[in-house]
Amino acid sequence: MEERFTIMHTAGELADWLGVRLEGDPGVELRGVASPERAGRHDLIYAEAEKHAARAQASAALCVIAPAGLAIAGKTVLRAANPKAVFARAAAALLPAPGIAAGIHGTAIVSPAAQLGHGVAIGPYAVVEEQAYIGAGTQIGAHGFIGSRAWIGEECRLHPRVTVYPGVRLGHRVQVHSGTVLGSDGFGYAFDGERYWKFPQIGLLEIGDDVEIGANATIDRGSLEDTRVKDGAKLDNLVHVGHNVEIGEHTVIAAQSGISGSSRLGRRVVLGGQVGIADRCRLEDGAIAGAQAGIPTGKIVRAGAPVWGTPARPLDKFKEQYAWFARLPELGARVKELERRWRDGER
Amino acid sequence: MEERFTIMHTAGELADWLGVRLEGDPGVELRGVASPERAGRHDLIYAEAEKHAARAQASAALCVIAPAGLAIAGKTVLRAANPKAVFARAAAALLPAPGIAAGIHGTAIVSPAAQLGHGVAIGPYAVVEEQAYIGAGTQIGAHGFIGSRAWIGEECRLHPRVTVYPGVRLGHRVQVHSGTVLGSDGFGYAFDGERYWKFPQIGLLEIGDDVEIGANATIDRGSLEDTRVKDGAKLDNLVHVGHNVEIGEHTVIAAQSGISGSSRLGRRVVLGGQVGIADRCRLEDGAIAGAQAGIPTGKIVRAGAPVWGTPARPLDKFKEQYAWFARLPELGARVKELERRWRDGER
Amino acid sequence: MEERFTIMHTAGELADWLGVRLEGDPGVELRGVASPERAGRHDLIYAEAEKHAARAQASAALCVIAPAGLAIAGKTVLRAANPKAVFARAAAALLPAPGIAAGIHGTAIVSPAAQLGHGVAIGPYAVVEEQAYIGAGTQIGAHGFIGSRAWIGEECRLHPRVTVYPGVRLGHRVQVHSGTVLGSDGFGYAFDGERYWKFPQIGLLEIGDDVEIGANATIDRGSLEDTRVKDGAKLDNLVHVGHNVEIGEHTVIAAQSGISGSSRLGRRVVLGGQVGIADRCRLEDGAIAGAQAGIPTGKIVRAGAPVWGTPARPLDKFKEQYAWFARLPELGARVKELERRWRDGER
Repeated sequence: MEERFTIMHTAGELADWLGVRLEGDPGVELRGVASPERAGRHDLIYAEAEKHAARAQASAALCVIAPAGLAIAGKTVLRAANPKAVFARAAAALLPAPGIAAGIHGTAIVSPAAQLGHGVAIGPYAVVEEQAYIGAGTQIGAHGFIGSRAWIGEECRLHPRVTVYPGVRLGHRVQVHSGTVLGSDGFGYAFDGERYWKFPQIGLLEIGDDVEIGANATIDRGSLEDTRVKDGAKLDNLVHVGHNVEIGEHTVIAAQSGISGSSRLGRRVVLGGQVGIADRCRLEDGAIAGAQAGIPTGKIVRAGAPVWGTPARPLDKFKEQYAWFARLPELGARVKELERRWRDGER
Repeated sequence: MEERFTIMHTAGELADWLGVRLEGDPGVELRGVASPERAGRHDLIYAEAEKHAARAQASAALCVIAPAGLAIAGKTVLRAANPKAVFARAAAALLPAPGIAAGIHGTAIVSPAAQLGHGVAIGPYAVVEEQAYIGAGTQIGAHGFIGSRAWIGEECRLHPRVTVYPGVRLGHRVQVHSGTVLGSDGFGYAFDGERYWKFPQIGLLEIGDDVEIGANATIDRGSLEDTRVKDGAKLDNLVHVGHNVEIGEHTVIAAQSGISGSSRLGRRVVLGGQVGIADRCRLEDGAIAGAQAGIPTGKIVRAGAPVWGTPARPLDKFKEQYAWFARLPELGARVKELERRWRDGER
Repeated sequence: MEERFTIMHTAGELADWLGVRLEGDPGVELRGVASPERAGRHDLIYAEAEKHAARAQASAALCVIAPAGLAIAGKTVLRAANPKAVFARAAAALLPAPGIAAGIHGTAIVSPAAQLGHGVAIGPYAVVEEQAYIGAGTQIGAHGFIGSRAWIGEECRLHPRVTVYPGVRLGHRVQVHSGTVLGSDGFGYAFDGERYWKFPQIGLLEIGDDVEIGANATIDRGSLEDTRVKDGAKLDNLVHVGHNVEIGEHTVIAAQSGISGSSRLGRRVVLGGQVGIADRCRLEDGAIAGAQAGIPTGKIVRAGAPVWGTPARPLDKFKEQYAWFARLPELGARVKELERRWRDGER
């Protein structure tokens, strides 16, 4: 990462690395990224469409990413069909993520029976238990806890104060924000008529590559099966994932959503904030649930039709029905009037 | 626990301890529990009903818990009216919970004015303040914080990174998952027309015996009264309990539910996920609120009729009304048609 | 604080400091505050209205705060138009908040390149990184993490286990409860048709003076802009605030509410529990959203009319419509009857 950074300090070098066409001066020096209004001369900006062109034009920035055909006079332009995605890639290159830890801090307690890859960094007061494995280049922040037999891939970034329960597995390049808990017991009890007995919560939790998890989220281990979060999934702050859940590749879950036991989300599913998914649901590849939607037990949500409401319905139906909901007092009055006319024999 | 574990390694011994009848070979050795598909020969499995019999029959497991009358050929069967509950009890015996800490770690900071029972274990970097009491056999995980004058009973399990505010009281055999905060200030302010003044939050938080609390949950102390979570209650991840709330015995609260100040839940209440209970509600013994239900301020929910929706209504009513909700566009069209006929004098 | 405390031990001294009129014995000694039922003789209590007078009258307390005209015989009365607010102020004076840390604990790791004001206290195992600034009188609890270049004002109270990401700024007298994460990355990605690229999250998080934040809350830093929580705002447990959000002065947000990216809340906004605000909404000064309300993307909520429901509507409309919702089965039956009559030619 550092090497890439030092090499890429001109617009021309960046264009080459991104694989996009450059119009203008390839020698423009780039030192960061910004919004058009905040950018200095050497910050990269982007414009997605005609309506953003004026903001980009008025910016102090010398270099802008824009789609073909968007005229921005006097600036160096990197042409890209998806300016925002290319801007995101460029930002990662121009602004390497700040370090979370450097070296193994003297106060980190690392079991002699743990195994650490090359260049692992562990912050102060972190604890790494026996038989844990941490891949090369991974950083564990201060107060991190890595339980016994946990397995963490390469180039992961665990911010301060993340808990990884024993036996949990993370892939490569996983990023986890502060306060998140991975691998806690699921919520399972058997009632015997008098009291609840804890059902065994002995399954695994496996998290794939390139997953990012926000702050104070919780993902439970499996009960008798496993919990899985697959490659490229993104989970926001305070998201809850219950036991035996499976979350597909590149699925995106906004803040405070919760997924109950044994539900399965396919690939590229999108959940808005505060969505609730009951147990044993199935959201097929590409399914979308709007914010605060509630998916009842066992329900299947297909792609193509976003759902909303509790219990969730197709978005367009829900909106139409909800519009009628607003007209209920009026509808009621109209029915009453019809009844009155009938009664009065009025015509 | 360890003693119990070494004694109970055959189906016969387990049957005796559980108090259930055994059919088949009492000498079958048992080493763990599993789902039928994952079980090895020496894993215990269970089958609840006829529809599960084929899965159990096909399993490699030699021993299965099943209700009377469920035929499973060639296996040793433990007969139990409630196979899942008995399986849960068996699992606890066959698989003692893994240790959270062993001994008092050299880096744990335990006030000389704290009092520790026999066999207490405290993990690395945990902090136990003055006058705190920790009962025999209790384990405090790494980075735990036990505030001054807190009182924790025997055989409790506090996973890494649990915060117990000063003065909080936990009963015996309480289990708390990582990141949970017990005894923070409640949310109470008095507005003087200009700004908010913090209302005193000086009450207690008392948690009973056999309570389990998930990860990253928050339970506030009382303001001028106390907050109470009674024996056997189970709270899932990210649950919020406000000040002065009382939660009755064996009440179960699923993930991300929140209970506002001074509400009272009786015994064996069940809340689905993301339920919201406003302040000063009362849920009577055995009341049930479906996922995402919202109970408005001061409302009383009785047993016998589960509620759903916001504001919550009896489940069957809510479902009937919600079905009509879907037919609103059609109902509107029918009213319009009646109006047209009337206008046109059509018959 | 201590000085104030030692001075103010009689009702007369307290009345002077509060600026309220005293009736009765100014020499009554005061040692704490309580509810009427729990109060001892020397605890201060309050009564807001006639209906609370009997409770106050029956209390053992010698001194009560009450509005003008409320008769309470035989007690010393402090007369105040807003007894609850004055009680809250009195409580703060009579019961100074308990210490979170004392001095700089020997195990606290404070970078030599950090700057600490007079009287700063830092608990065990806390970590303060380079270039961080901590103002005079501020207390950082055990296991706190203060990232590099963070700036924390005077007289703040960070309970144990709070994470302050690098560069985050807190004003004066800010109180943050355990487990809360300030300044984590916002949830922003750009999809390129194949996978998500992390959008830069390099903005600031600025928190004003006199803000209080509950336990296990999460507030993200800005992406290309900043996130701001202004003076006097109060956020309850498990609240989520997304990137680039602005929360106005004295705004109050109850537990488990979430605010998505770039939404702006004005001054003295009130959100009930579990409210969800989508991205780019604007809640004007004094706007109110009832518990579990959902505000859709880009929506403007004005003051004067509280909103409820998802999508949110004016409270009175929502209630009227929801009442009709309950009568839908009946309304459907009435329409059916009208249709039958029409068909039958009945009159």
